[in-house]
Amino acid sequence: MSEPRDVYARSLELHRAKRGKIRMESRVSIETLDDLALAYTPGVAEPCREIERNPEALYEVTSKGDWVGVVTDGSAVLGLGDIGPAAALPVMEGKCCLFKRFAGIDAFPLCVDQRDPDLFVDLVARCAVSFGGINLEDIAAPRCFEIERKLQERLDIPVFHDDQHGTAVIVLAGVRNALKLVGKDLSRVRVVMNGMGAAGSAIAAMLEAGGARNLVCCDRFGVMDPRDDRLTEPQRALAGRTNPEGIRGDLSEALRGADLFVGVSRAGLVTEAMVASMAPRGVVFAMANPTPEIFPDAARAAGAAVVATGRSDFPNQVNNCLGFPGIFRGALDVRATRVDEAMKLAAAEALSALIPQGELWEDRILPDALDPRVVPAVAAAVGAAAQRSGLARR
Amino acid sequence: MSEPRDVYARSLELHRAKRGKIRMESRVSIETLDDLALAYTPGVAEPCREIERNPEALYEVTSKGDWVGVVTDGSAVLGLGDIGPAAALPVMEGKCCLFKRFAGIDAFPLCVDQRDPDLFVDLVARCAVSFGGINLEDIAAPRCFEIERKLQERLDIPVFHDDQHGTAVIVLAGVRNALKLVGKDLSRVRVVMNGMGAAGSAIAAMLEAGGARNLVCCDRFGVMDPRDDRLTEPQRALAGRTNPEGIRGDLSEALRGADLFVGVSRAGLVTEAMVASMAPRGVVFAMANPTPEIFPDAARAAGAAVVATGRSDFPNQVNNCLGFPGIFRGALDVRATRVDEAMKLAAAEALSALIPQGELWEDRILPDALDPRVVPAVAAAVGAAAQRSGLARR
Repeated sequence: MSEPRDVYARSLELHRAKRGKIRMESRVSIETLDDLALAYTPGVAEPCREIERNPEALYEVTSKGDWVGVVTDGSAVLGLGDIGPAAALPVMEGKCCLFKRFAGIDAFPLCVDQRDPDLFVDLVARCAVSFGGINLEDIAAPRCFEIERKLQERLDIPVFHDDQHGTAVIVLAGVRNALKLVGKDLSRVRVVMNGMGAAGSAIAAMLEAGGARNLVCCDRFGVMDPRDDRLTEPQRALAGRTNPEGIRGDLSEALRGADLFVGVSRAGLVTEAMVASMAPRGVVFAMANPTPEIFPDAARAAGAAVVATGRSDFPNQVNNCLGFPGIFRGALDVRATRVDEAMKLAAAEALSALIPQGELWEDRILPDALDPRVVPAVAAAVGAAAQRSGLARR
Repeated sequence: MSEPRDVYARSLELHRAKRGKIRMESRVSIETLDDLALAYTPGVAEPCREIERNPEALYEVTSKGDWVGVVTDGSAVLGLGDIGPAAALPVMEGKCCLFKRFAGIDAFPLCVDQRDPDLFVDLVARCAVSFGGINLEDIAAPRCFEIERKLQERLDIPVFHDDQHGTAVIVLAGVRNALKLVGKDLSRVRVVMNGMGAAGSAIAAMLEAGGARNLVCCDRFGVMDPRDDRLTEPQRALAGRTNPEGIRGDLSEALRGADLFVGVSRAGLVTEAMVASMAPRGVVFAMANPTPEIFPDAARAAGAAVVATGRSDFPNQVNNCLGFPGIFRGALDVRATRVDEAMKLAAAEALSALIPQGELWEDRILPDALDPRVVPAVAAAVGAAAQRSGLARR
């Protein structure tokens, strides 16, 4: 991969040359007046009446079931922070391109200038007719939790905050394969997490759902204490139900003897000494972006058996493209009303199963982002899980 | 053209077969990890920062300038009435296809479940980042007037209610050519209008802007009286400034001796006797849909020199495709902040000029809906007018 500075300059060049990244196409050809009368007035009145008679016909006579809204308030965009809805548009357009490229899903960016969570939810719910699903993107914690929950209550289409759940699904898949490789069991290892924002919280919940029983959650003040009033309500709940050994102190103390580190925090927070203090055959997921908590070579030198990062220039990239395209494809294919835990677990399982035992190596615990097997496998698993959960409408 | 019943059945079939009419395409190819790094993270951070530095860069590094939002509340859809935002989606998708087909404009349907005009305006304004223009569609009068005005005040992109202004532009173009043909001058003829809803009011204003001085406006109670408290405020103002001869009574009385009839009212309201009572070489625009106020053969038999309708199976179709595609194309091309009266007049002039004197016949006062000269001519005229008005940003 190119150096960051080069990537930025070349990306700006590309964006200027293309003048944006998305366009719309008509799926009907309009060459004659008769074509016009069928696609538009007067003929189009009949599909309208059909929807009046049966609201589910929206999925049969409009493109609703193929479209996902990529929705943000611009409050936590990439590593750039709160840059607002306008400056967030290039990211949302990019996400739309990924939806198309990886899953054949039509997507449109909705950058919403509204910071009140309830008003944001109300706004999105009131203009969701065109969408078969909503992908929430780059919304700051803790607002993102409330928005996702309330919007899902309002809508009968999947509402999915990718920064949380997409990442969490991939981490669980990668963790499973890494532990398989080092011969450990998720239910028996000590997992130390660092960075308990949107992604961190979702990863913790996913690891718990996947069987983790000894989770130690750290933020910048060290191991989270349920009595710490600087924590949000969900963080306090998480701190209360985790850390069964009652570990206290900072990250370095938590890591002593730990089997797995999962960081979505900041560059360089993990030292070689910390990794060296972990249990033998330790696993490190250092996903701070663009610079990881510790670089893979340093972590390996300090004794880590497997290292994953968020970067494409190192092995074992936790790339969101492994998650959301297949998850949405599967959910849309069966017209799921939402994405539940079983569907996410099924996605993680499908993802880890793509690397069978014989192909599993320290440098290959996850499929490549561009592996064409990923989306079909994840989509099939998610669709089947939705059907088992009773959330599929077909 | 096919019979209505057939058109409805065939349209439903088409919509079912296609499962909707619009799709999205990526304008960037993503085949390698490097492509991914340029179109999405980490590279995309740079176009975001560029917009933070200079908000106008939205037009340079995103697709904003190519996209129009087709926005409705579903309150007055075709002749179907208030069918709501969901059942309106097939029409909005159809409109998006027309934007693409006729003007190469990317368009997305936003069907908004909000009936309070102020809240509707607020909602649309808060999610307009992705759009270079807003096409309001199928919103009931009088709400549509307030919504258009207030939304335009909030936004620096064109907000255009096509049902009003698009139709009005085309009527003015057709009226000009029809009067040229019969050797009359718009400033000297008596124009009788029937049906003073959204389209009727806009047509009246456009005819006035185009030079009409003797306008008589009728609704279902006959010639509108400024003291009639059943009228809305704008209707009262219109009634007050028109009807210089002080004509009273019903439509048939207004039509006696009139030169031009413009109807956007209901099927069959105009009889042959009424047309026969008009001044010699009368012109009839009978645009009720799908059945006109009087059929062309009947109007011609009763003495009308030129007849136009809204239907493609008769000559002189007032087809909206003659207006909005070129108007938006022109406005987007120069990044106009709004569409003012001069731009609409320029569009009407460009449209009527497409039928030069020698090609002007009773059956050909307007170009065909599919005439490829229309959009470039209208767009160029609108763009130039925006520049003269100081509304162009490039």
